[in-house]
Amino acid sequence: MGENRKIILVERPRYRMPTHNCFKLERGPIPEPGEEEFLVRTLWLGLDPYLHGRMKRVSPQAEPVAIGDVMVGATVGRVEQSNHPAYEPGELVVGFWGWQDYAISNGSRILKLKTQLEQEHPSYALGALSRLTGLVAYISIMEISKPRAGETVVIGAATGGLGQIAGQLAKLQGTRAVGIAGSQKKCDFAVDELGYDACVCYKDDDFADQLKNACPEGVDVYVQTIGGDDLDAVMPLLNLYARMPVLGVIAMWSAADLPTGPDRTMLFLNQVMTKRLRVEGVVGNDYFQSHFGVFQREMATWIRNGDIKIVEHVVPDLEDAPMALQGMFQSADEHLGKLVVHVGD
Amino acid sequence: MGENRKIILVERPRYRMPTHNCFKLERGPIPEPGEEEFLVRTLWLGLDPYLHGRMKRVSPQAEPVAIGDVMVGATVGRVEQSNHPAYEPGELVVGFWGWQDYAISNGSRILKLKTQLEQEHPSYALGALSRLTGLVAYISIMEISKPRAGETVVIGAATGGLGQIAGQLAKLQGTRAVGIAGSQKKCDFAVDELGYDACVCYKDDDFADQLKNACPEGVDVYVQTIGGDDLDAVMPLLNLYARMPVLGVIAMWSAADLPTGPDRTMLFLNQVMTKRLRVEGVVGNDYFQSHFGVFQREMATWIRNGDIKIVEHVVPDLEDAPMALQGMFQSADEHLGKLVVHVGD
Repeated sequence: MGENRKIILVERPRYRMPTHNCFKLERGPIPEPGEEEFLVRTLWLGLDPYLHGRMKRVSPQAEPVAIGDVMVGATVGRVEQSNHPAYEPGELVVGFWGWQDYAISNGSRILKLKTQLEQEHPSYALGALSRLTGLVAYISIMEISKPRAGETVVIGAATGGLGQIAGQLAKLQGTRAVGIAGSQKKCDFAVDELGYDACVCYKDDDFADQLKNACPEGVDVYVQTIGGDDLDAVMPLLNLYARMPVLGVIAMWSAADLPTGPDRTMLFLNQVMTKRLRVEGVVGNDYFQSHFGVFQREMATWIRNGDIKIVEHVVPDLEDAPMALQGMFQSADEHLGKLVVHVGD
Repeated sequence: MGENRKIILVERPRYRMPTHNCFKLERGPIPEPGEEEFLVRTLWLGLDPYLHGRMKRVSPQAEPVAIGDVMVGATVGRVEQSNHPAYEPGELVVGFWGWQDYAISNGSRILKLKTQLEQEHPSYALGALSRLTGLVAYISIMEISKPRAGETVVIGAATGGLGQIAGQLAKLQGTRAVGIAGSQKKCDFAVDELGYDACVCYKDDDFADQLKNACPEGVDVYVQTIGGDDLDAVMPLLNLYARMPVLGVIAMWSAADLPTGPDRTMLFLNQVMTKRLRVEGVVGNDYFQSHFGVFQREMATWIRNGDIKIVEHVVPDLEDAPMALQGMFQSADEHLGKLVVHVGD
């Protein structure tokens, strides 16, 4: 009845970016569910910056994908065949079965899509309404930063899956939202389509000056996803009592080595003290029990009311996923919004 | 009726430590208060790590002392002569009139000593019951970190003015308190006299291993005052959701240059994210309005009840202050507890 394509991790990234060499496409039969298992057909695969970290070892908390295993990633699918009492064929589910057309599951780490909006737009379960993207943006703004009207919020990767939501949430709080992105096209999109007050391109020579001009009252919240040049440009602009939710360090994850010295860690801590900054790590799973339900209801309402616009860049086929992941780390100009791979129907 | 000795800043520190060359003793007449002014006789001068920072420019927020001016520092004194309606001769006051026997004040940045304990021990107004020392330790433990019984709290400069209070406050919360100090003598004192569960010497070759052994359950709170080797040894031990109040970066303040590379700032941020750390700058003045009254009442009670022991290292004369400040940054073995200079009676 057809085949199952799997994309396998065959080599860890040795250079700045994950490359084609890291992956291999394998074809095999569609697996059969055993007792208390079901077969799921992948509809959508989400591509997120953390995946680069899963390809190599970046922290003692997260085991990297083993060489020879299917590449991991958040997925949405439809139950095709079920020997599991809790899952019916036709049901939509979200999980982490990775880069393949089909998978067998016993229900572990699987959620059913609950909101009407996800039934209509299943890929939203990987982005706007997901733990990894929407919930993290929501917690960063609404719980960690709590910006007051008139404050300035700076958001890196402003047009990305997470940035687009954080920026629009910041605007809903009455703040000045300033984005950072990788091209003029993205910056225009951030301002014209997502409602940012300003957006500056980190590749411009005068990026730091542009950012300073875009933040005449300084910066009260910095949604820290990138590190690197973004962080260097933001640090001098931070106001007293600024908040910095830390969601990622993409500039480090996508680099072969740490930047050369001097080691400025203590300079950073000195600024934390003199400016009384609050720097706090945010991981979506931590807030799943406490906030996921409220978050999904509020976010779905904002999306339906047009208060928050969700943009997706759709990659048309599973076999394009390696190239698309590379593009994410190269800040590919055509990537606007959440990056999702259309795997099947 | 006598002379006024002043210690003047004549040169900014060019090397790791403030040196004798930075200061000059000047003698002059005792000044006369004008209208709405009073003359104060200095009794005690407090020496704190932040003073090194005031000798050079370390942050845009704090102007350094001007060359040729009296060196700054927190002081306690007695009103000798007053043309100010709110101050009577004989009253004890605390302020920032710096390294001199006498000063004229119009009441700006002056507080009267309010608690009975300060009347009995006026130097406590510079340490245990002060904004700069006691309040910062109190806020770091009781408001920022809120350690639960059984958690592990690590405190740098464990026997210093701030460390001794933070360590004993941590013990009062039922935690395991682990100190870091600069000699075996200090470590013994921390355990035997201040009640730390363990204390390790950062000058030992196997310091990081010793610290790891002293924290078998990892570290939940790190009261960050030093940076440098202390920070490097603590970072791998931090547990998920650890709190790090940032009170100072003495290793940077007392160094001529930043450490050589690589630049590990992003590595730090990556740990903030993966371990969901909360890193927060603490400056005592911020909590003065909201917490100073409660803090003074609670601290005075703890001290009277013997729950918190206050140790002071008394420098016998104003002219010894430059040497004592140098000793502070060299972690002088004889310095145990809050460093105060006895200026007059």
